[in-house]
Amino acid sequence: VSTVISLTTDFGQVDAFVGIMKGVIAGIEPRARVVDLTHAIPPQDVAAGAFALATAYRYFPPETIHVAIVDPGVGSRRRAVALEAGGYRWVAPDNGVLGYALADLARAGRLQGRWRAGYWHLGADAQAVELTDPGYWLAPVSRTFHGRDVFAPVAAHLARGVPLAALGRPLARVRALALPRPRRVGRGWRGQVIHVDRFGNLITNLGAAELGDVDWRVRVAAREIAGLSASYADMDADMGAELAGLGAIVDSSGYLEIALRDGSAAARLGATVGTRVAVVPSHSETVS
Amino acid sequence: VSTVISLTTDFGQVDAFVGIMKGVIAGIEPRARVVDLTHAIPPQDVAAGAFALATAYRYFPPETIHVAIVDPGVGSRRRAVALEAGGYRWVAPDNGVLGYALADLARAGRLQGRWRAGYWHLGADAQAVELTDPGYWLAPVSRTFHGRDVFAPVAAHLARGVPLAALGRPLARVRALALPRPRRVGRGWRGQVIHVDRFGNLITNLGAAELGDVDWRVRVAAREIAGLSASYADMDADMGAELAGLGAIVDSSGYLEIALRDGSAAARLGATVGTRVAVVPSHSETVS
Amino acid sequence: VSTVISLTTDFGQVDAFVGIMKGVIAGIEPRARVVDLTHAIPPQDVAAGAFALATAYRYFPPETIHVAIVDPGVGSRRRAVALEAGGYRWVAPDNGVLGYALADLARAGRLQGRWRAGYWHLGADAQAVELTDPGYWLAPVSRTFHGRDVFAPVAAHLARGVPLAALGRPLARVRALALPRPRRVGRGWRGQVIHVDRFGNLITNLGAAELGDVDWRVRVAAREIAGLSASYADMDADMGAELAGLGAIVDSSGYLEIALRDGSAAARLGATVGTRVAVVPSHSETVS
Repeated sequence: VSTVISLTTDFGQVDAFVGIMKGVIAGIEPRARVVDLTHAIPPQDVAAGAFALATAYRYFPPETIHVAIVDPGVGSRRRAVALEAGGYRWVAPDNGVLGYALADLARAGRLQGRWRAGYWHLGADAQAVELTDPGYWLAPVSRTFHGRDVFAPVAAHLARGVPLAALGRPLARVRALALPRPRRVGRGWRGQVIHVDRFGNLITNLGAAELGDVDWRVRVAAREIAGLSASYADMDADMGAELAGLGAIVDSSGYLEIALRDGSAAARLGATVGTRVAVVPSHSETVS
Repeated sequence: VSTVISLTTDFGQVDAFVGIMKGVIAGIEPRARVVDLTHAIPPQDVAAGAFALATAYRYFPPETIHVAIVDPGVGSRRRAVALEAGGYRWVAPDNGVLGYALADLARAGRLQGRWRAGYWHLGADAQAVELTDPGYWLAPVSRTFHGRDVFAPVAAHLARGVPLAALGRPLARVRALALPRPRRVGRGWRGQVIHVDRFGNLITNLGAAELGDVDWRVRVAAREIAGLSASYADMDADMGAELAGLGAIVDSSGYLEIALRDGSAAARLGATVGTRVAVVPSHSETVS
Repeated sequence: VSTVISLTTDFGQVDAFVGIMKGVIAGIEPRARVVDLTHAIPPQDVAAGAFALATAYRYFPPETIHVAIVDPGVGSRRRAVALEAGGYRWVAPDNGVLGYALADLARAGRLQGRWRAGYWHLGADAQAVELTDPGYWLAPVSRTFHGRDVFAPVAAHLARGVPLAALGRPLARVRALALPRPRRVGRGWRGQVIHVDRFGNLITNLGAAELGDVDWRVRVAAREIAGLSASYADMDADMGAELAGLGAIVDSSGYLEIALRDGSAAARLGATVGTRVAVVPSHSETVS
């Protein structure tokens, strides 16, 4: 069976960067199946890349090679890494972009080790290497496009069976961004918007650990939403004209999401990444 | 031979939604070949999704599984359906998005049954089911992303050979949007713009049934175009500076299209979906 | 092993045009692997298509079929062509879009023949045909979408083994755009911006032949950059606040590129395609 390679980058789809990477892969391992996660990560926004990868990785078959390239340090001394962790392979610059996915694996009990001071320190169930063997790269390596010259060929060589250990020298830790953590406030939580999706939905950092099975009142951008909805279509007009259609829901990744039925909550509320969101149990009086 | 699955959605390509669906499919039926029709349907615009699918479906090999997800009712009680009709398989929310394609199949003599009151009532040559068996879905099913949890896995199971009837309970009809129909006015027709494409070309609902082999004068946005052109390059300057390069042509789907040579007719004319377009035989005096 | 078909078009990804072409290909040669280079070429911008193809073609495996469709003359008498040249196959309208790639092959010693007066005159190591045999097209051929009706089916037939000569009548030359050439000025060069990429980087026509191993001072948009950087991260603040982070680098195709660390050089400098760029050896006093 052919191996799947997923690609997450900030390369956009206007230039041929992504197509070039696929050409390189096809030349090394023609049987690999390449799937685009997204190439619309805002330029150099490592956290946005980490978010996209964390929402997606677990829906791929085991052994999938996830390649994430948001790489403001390309051509400098920053490391490039490859990992085996949680049943998948990972290839990326060592700048933290794998952090949210690794934390998600750990929460699910699929990865040992622990996060400390900007790094994921690997346990016995994972291994990592720094990409140091140029025998698995294109030659010469350019100063500006390691997606083509290093990451694509390394992923293709992994797909055709090259063992991880052959790619470079072992590492005990890799850089890992960490999501901002919600704070306990009284009987509720205070978190923030961590992503705005294509529909203008606001995804927050309030997840299953905070939400549990309770119903919540939600405060965002000086508005209050009375409780969680069961679907977008349920976000109806019962809260007066100004808030008509605005609602909160547990999104497809398990996080609290603020949405506007048939519209953009981000535009309506003037909210963006970093906007504060507070919740209290819905039987409480006020939202702080 | 591997089965083709086509995807038409309003998910965009900024988030990882589409890549996630492809991961799910690869996990269930690795041999399936997924082709993107478009993911740029305007959010919740079911008619635009119906249009894209209708222009494209017939260029795919027999047995292709066409998946169309424009789904403002996700998570509510709206049905999800799968069909075998016209030599293809179809998977979609039951909100009418398949309507234009089904009507096109019927016009081509490849589908029995008939449209009435918002539904396509199936004949003996097609079958449909409501998706009711969660054994073919991911578990748990989220409230907001049935593309991942229901539609992608159902398409993948069809691709690996699961019979349609196994997916749920039989249906005699499915919802079907119908194109606005042109009206006869004197010896001509009055129609409207139903799509504006990437180049700013205006595609109308005036098709082969109305146009026949006659040459037409076309009136749109208070301008008059003297007759049909044989190519974009033929839309030349012989009609005075203000209309230079504006022309009408039978487009690649057989519909009347208003175009501007090397430019955007939509921008030049201030026209959009719904703008009226009238035609009379080109030997007539006036366009009403 | 399956053949790769690369697609470069101005069709965008909003309409289903590209998906339709993939459906046509899948129906003729299901084993072909289609890779998108880009579909975001500005409408009718043949030079931009030529640039994308020239940066990408060589990273694909031998025998890849490169299809480039930027075709303002669709449906008119302009020719359509197919070539075997430089170890690849090429399918395109005969409007010059293959020109930059052919010149690049010739520079690399992989293609004989020569450019004269808008045409590449083929040598003994390449062959070309005008696409004249409708037996390899869809029927009927529309007036507006030869990507679907001519180019996709021809590429698929090539992929399944149809010989080039079967597709039409032999040609001794094909149209070929030529890059604007830098001019020698004193001990330096005067060139121009030929592409602005997704990151706002300015790619120039000053390549290896001009740059050699010398370090250069670069003048663009009334600013002067002191020398070439080794990486984006090296573009630091040592040149005063106004120019902080601005730098020049040899890009991934070997051309001089003006970039802004973590930002858009195009936006900062107000530069675009055609903006002049001058270089002198960095030990010289002034940049003309």
